[in-house]
Amino acid sequence: MPAEHASTAVLINGQRHAPEQATVSVFDRGFQYGDGVFETLAVVAGQVRDRDAHLDRLARGATLLGIPEPDRDALSAEIAQLAAAGEGNAVIKVLYSRGVGGRGLAPPAEPAPTRVVMRLPWPAHPPDWRESGVRTMTCRTRQASGAALDGRIKSMNQLNHIVARMEWRDPAIAEGLLCDEAGRVVEGTVSNLFVVIGGRLLTPDLSGAGLPGVTRGRVMALAAERCGGVAEADLTAADLAGAEEVFLTNSLIGIWPVREHDGRALAAPGPVTLELQQALEGSYA
Amino acid sequence: MPAEHASTAVLINGQRHAPEQATVSVFDRGFQYGDGVFETLAVVAGQVRDRDAHLDRLARGATLLGIPEPDRDALSAEIAQLAAAGEGNAVIKVLYSRGVGGRGLAPPAEPAPTRVVMRLPWPAHPPDWRESGVRTMTCRTRQASGAALDGRIKSMNQLNHIVARMEWRDPAIAEGLLCDEAGRVVEGTVSNLFVVIGGRLLTPDLSGAGLPGVTRGRVMALAAERCGGVAEADLTAADLAGAEEVFLTNSLIGIWPVREHDGRALAAPGPVTLELQQALEGSYA
Repeated sequence: MPAEHASTAVLINGQRHAPEQATVSVFDRGFQYGDGVFETLAVVAGQVRDRDAHLDRLARGATLLGIPEPDRDALSAEIAQLAAAGEGNAVIKVLYSRGVGGRGLAPPAEPAPTRVVMRLPWPAHPPDWRESGVRTMTCRTRQASGAALDGRIKSMNQLNHIVARMEWRDPAIAEGLLCDEAGRVVEGTVSNLFVVIGGRLLTPDLSGAGLPGVTRGRVMALAAERCGGVAEADLTAADLAGAEEVFLTNSLIGIWPVREHDGRALAAPGPVTLELQQALEGSYA
Repeated sequence: MPAEHASTAVLINGQRHAPEQATVSVFDRGFQYGDGVFETLAVVAGQVRDRDAHLDRLARGATLLGIPEPDRDALSAEIAQLAAAGEGNAVIKVLYSRGVGGRGLAPPAEPAPTRVVMRLPWPAHPPDWRESGVRTMTCRTRQASGAALDGRIKSMNQLNHIVARMEWRDPAIAEGLLCDEAGRVVEGTVSNLFVVIGGRLLTPDLSGAGLPGVTRGRVMALAAERCGGVAEADLTAADLAGAEEVFLTNSLIGIWPVREHDGRALAAPGPVTLELQQALEGSYA
């Protein structure tokens, strides 16, 4: 059974389905065009992390696409229901598409969106990745830019990052970083990036492209309290090659120190990374 | 019933389904990520137009995405079956996704793709659009560029063009044109563009971004025989503003003359447009 089918439960517009019976119409614009948004939430020790921030971003993305805002109370209840549907840590994925309808690309005047909430197994990453760090590489695939919304909202158009993810099969490589056409490092395929250069904590400026993660926001707030803050900056591959520390963030991994990037070893976790790892874990309590 | 549900038949991996029962798994990567390709074919007077060219492009796109090539014999038979499933002109849409599986963005080592073939009603465009021309506008939305594959293969990631299509609701506007970040006109939301400037027939150079349509290719071949050929060129909004003729192509519309672009009237159909319209119609005989 594929990993995704190991889901313990799926809710479609609030209706519970066994994973094998969880389907959407082939006419759903999510399937036809990737016309929708999604969020991925961590459930740790029974607690859903950053639910409000994820639902805020989902609603913001939907609004930018002209899809009616999702029913927040219904979504919150569905997330709570699935968070309680099993033991141990889990992942909740929410997909929210424009639903069936419209004439070709033109959306229907009154969309009937499709709301899917699923509980998925916690990813089986090696436990030492969090403590000892991960290996990363720079992808040849460039971050999409110039697109209206791709990459700035968490949309169901993920081919750019899938193609980047397909550049490596070595399971010892944890993540690949994408640069834009100008050579600026933007983000990982599923994570945001932070670096310490000359003692300063920096993260790529995502005003041009890239998705500001919920955990990125949380780490930036923590760093403002503890590490003199984070500057959003243009970072190149050369900047990364001179960094003292590099780390990655997302809602499932928290913070992963990078111990090797493009074959260059880094001290991991460095002192800033370690302090923020501890602060991040403490911030959920 | 939404227009898409007026489909007379759907085949999913060769199995026929009533439209209301035609579904795919919520775990299908087509729904999760837009991870797939599609084609839209015209059935006119019972004949499927340019089947081989469409299947070639579908296979090429799948290969570029690392999806196993679709079973061409099966697809051909399914297209023929649906072409014969009703009276009158129709549209056949083929969707080919990577199917269920993988871990997050990383595709499964051995994908089991999902093949969907559907028969849809012929679009109800005003009949005088072909004879007297259409109104078009330039979209503010920029063509995605710098992306690995978006826009160069006919992928199920269509948000960029959906956002462009949402810029107008006036049903008298037939199409919107997208420019890239450098201001070059690339394509329409669902069509390719040709212009006559100083007596020369030109079409945007799509080596950077944009999808070379099957009908674009057919028109270029016809023009080579009859109109001194077509030059692929960088075209700006200013070039369009000075054009003697402008027309659009795709597999369903054939050639539409443009009679007004961004409020400027054009003679439509101009002599080159008219000659190619007649040649195109004759070329299917």
